[in-house]
Amino acid sequence: MFRIASAAHLRIVVDHLMRIEVLNTGTELLLGSVLNTHLQFLAQALFPLGLRIERQVTVPDGDAIRVAVAETFGRAEVVLITGGLGPTTDDITREAVAELLGLELIHDETVMAAIERRFARRNLTMSARNARQAQRPAEAIVLHNPNGTAPGLYLAARPHGTITTPHLFLLPGPPRELQPMVTDQVLLLLAKLLPARPAVEMRVARIAGLGESAVEELVGGPLLALGLELGYCARPGEVDLRTIGSPAILDQAGRIIAEKLGPHIVSHDQRPLEKVLVDLLTERGETLACAESCTGGFLAHRITNVPGASAVFLGGYVTYANAVKTSALGVDAGLIEAHGAVSEPVAVAMAEGARQKAGADYALSTTGIAGPDGGSEEKPVGTVFIALAGKMGATLVERNRFPTDRQTFKDLVSLTAFELLRRQLTAR
Amino acid sequence: MFRIASAAHLRIVVDHLMRIEVLNTGTELLLGSVLNTHLQFLAQALFPLGLRIERQVTVPDGDAIRVAVAETFGRAEVVLITGGLGPTTDDITREAVAELLGLELIHDETVMAAIERRFARRNLTMSARNARQAQRPAEAIVLHNPNGTAPGLYLAARPHGTITTPHLFLLPGPPRELQPMVTDQVLLLLAKLLPARPAVEMRVARIAGLGESAVEELVGGPLLALGLELGYCARPGEVDLRTIGSPAILDQAGRIIAEKLGPHIVSHDQRPLEKVLVDLLTERGETLACAESCTGGFLAHRITNVPGASAVFLGGYVTYANAVKTSALGVDAGLIEAHGAVSEPVAVAMAEGARQKAGADYALSTTGIAGPDGGSEEKPVGTVFIALAGKMGATLVERNRFPTDRQTFKDLVSLTAFELLRRQLTAR
Repeated sequence: MFRIASAAHLRIVVDHLMRIEVLNTGTELLLGSVLNTHLQFLAQALFPLGLRIERQVTVPDGDAIRVAVAETFGRAEVVLITGGLGPTTDDITREAVAELLGLELIHDETVMAAIERRFARRNLTMSARNARQAQRPAEAIVLHNPNGTAPGLYLAARPHGTITTPHLFLLPGPPRELQPMVTDQVLLLLAKLLPARPAVEMRVARIAGLGESAVEELVGGPLLALGLELGYCARPGEVDLRTIGSPAILDQAGRIIAEKLGPHIVSHDQRPLEKVLVDLLTERGETLACAESCTGGFLAHRITNVPGASAVFLGGYVTYANAVKTSALGVDAGLIEAHGAVSEPVAVAMAEGARQKAGADYALSTTGIAGPDGGSEEKPVGTVFIALAGKMGATLVERNRFPTDRQTFKDLVSLTAFELLRRQLTAR
Repeated sequence: MFRIASAAHLRIVVDHLMRIEVLNTGTELLLGSVLNTHLQFLAQALFPLGLRIERQVTVPDGDAIRVAVAETFGRAEVVLITGGLGPTTDDITREAVAELLGLELIHDETVMAAIERRFARRNLTMSARNARQAQRPAEAIVLHNPNGTAPGLYLAARPHGTITTPHLFLLPGPPRELQPMVTDQVLLLLAKLLPARPAVEMRVARIAGLGESAVEELVGGPLLALGLELGYCARPGEVDLRTIGSPAILDQAGRIIAEKLGPHIVSHDQRPLEKVLVDLLTERGETLACAESCTGGFLAHRITNVPGASAVFLGGYVTYANAVKTSALGVDAGLIEAHGAVSEPVAVAMAEGARQKAGADYALSTTGIAGPDGGSEEKPVGTVFIALAGKMGATLVERNRFPTDRQTFKDLVSLTAFELLRRQLTAR
């Protein structure tokens, strides 16, 4: 979990542009049928403007939407509302907002024409219900939706009895419609509302091979002394170290981080480890192969997720059965018999076999016991051998133990294998 | 996105056990540094009790917690609060709740002893701050936390001025601590609070090869006529069809679904397709191999995510480079030269080569252009050939096109390949 190192430092940034709240509508979110990713997306999108979300609420479709919007009046300065803009009768965000602001709902010919064009382009027949989506409160500004039928709507703050209403943004629920609308339109409108302020940036260093507390011990004190905000986000095998402050302070922080954490720094720009590897190999004009047993193709999958991987990744051998270790990689059946498939000599033979068969500069291998079954006293569940064969000479091999669930096991083994290669490529 | 077919049907179930709200605390959630998965987990955990969450709120650490808890008084009957139980000064959930209820904070010796044992077991030194975690409001029931230092706390509903306070559950923020605490302790406490009621179940059929609207067209009318609640959740290539109602009505619904959607039904119990395949092959005592180009190991990765896959999955060949297609699978270099690596004859040769090299009963192959680069007029980005070689005789091959992002491409190609095999295994 992310942890803010010091609440006092938070105030540097928060202090205080606009109070922003997010209101997510949708029964599916409260049933757990759909994971709510809107808050995370919106928070990350708003951050570069120096804006933070102060409260987020999820309510079901129906009248709860009206109640929740009304609650923000007099408290929030901006409310981002997602969902409830569809064509069906329980999509009532438009109506609720119009009612609360005392505005008429009008039929917008331009929106209607856009919806009609969309249906025509797709050879679909419009239903009468879609006409509802062309309604908008009078005075609302329409936010074009190139990815769906429901346009977004923006209602600027206005006097309302004794208070000023918040700026209201009505946004579509599906992420593929909402996200481009926010990036392309909402952020510009928000930026215009903001007072001028000193620039604050966020930088994230990705660290491997050190726990969160070890990272804090090494850099926490000196970084906080600079007067920046500091956060840690730990995942299995990795820690993201986040610094927020002025560019000048962040430059100083970067020097401290490089000095104290040097070889553990995977990237300064949140590039994942596999992308760092593909970039390093591409620079060097070198190639890679993999021989996987316990990771079952996950190393190859991660590497081939990187666009351009084909320039450096020649191939992978997922040698799950022992006979395939022998037929595909030339691992001596006697070696497997003598030491077991999960053993240092077999890991070495797999890496060397893959390197030779694929004609690659480097080859990584993994052989281990992912569990839940298959462990022994000598080699309990979670035991894994990872080897790296390559042009550097003797094949490297490491024994580790990751007793965990199957997916986390694959995460940790692939991370450890990739780190073995990254260290090799960046050593000198 | 999940869509409720009819708001009227919703009320069958909601109507009305207890009003439950969720309050998530944590600045990291509002910064977007951590994705909030609590709502989804809690909603799914509570559903089998017939309970639904009516509102969810996220607030930052600090005084906003007290304000948000107070707001639920007089409105909610149960409030599940996550986070704010840590040892640091901005973890104030305990204090805020004690203050709101007018209860004293007392030092709990049993909790203190448990924390001390935990530190001793891990050879860690306790800091004085950890003693804060042994404090609890008088009258709170302690929920044991085997996965962390912060215990959970339960405060039963009690008279408070003119209202009755909600039942308050204070739960730790990290999912690996919260989730077992909910499953093992909170659900039992909630079950005791519930009135007796007619049993309602949820069943989910997983459908492949039909879009959401096609599924609705085939079964939507007859299912709604049974008086159940119906929902659809579409993912690339798949639709989950959810029915909620009494067991008798769901049995009727199951017969309609089987009749209308027959061959498209992957499972009736949300088993993923790869698990269905491993189960089918295990039953039949048959084995599988894969030869992958564009999916880059993703087929092997999905299959090996299933515990017990080693009984049926012999191995995979991730033949990214053309030379490796030839060296590992024996694909004729002249064939690649003549037709291109992304072609029907190469897909067939890859599947047949993998089957023969691994000695498997069946082999699947994929070769295509994932993008973003590499397309041509004849074979645009997204083009893919999928083949299945096997004991059924002639090798099957399909041409498809999935112009999308890299991960969705892998999702769709693997789903299509697995479906090709599943249909083969379930045909007759």
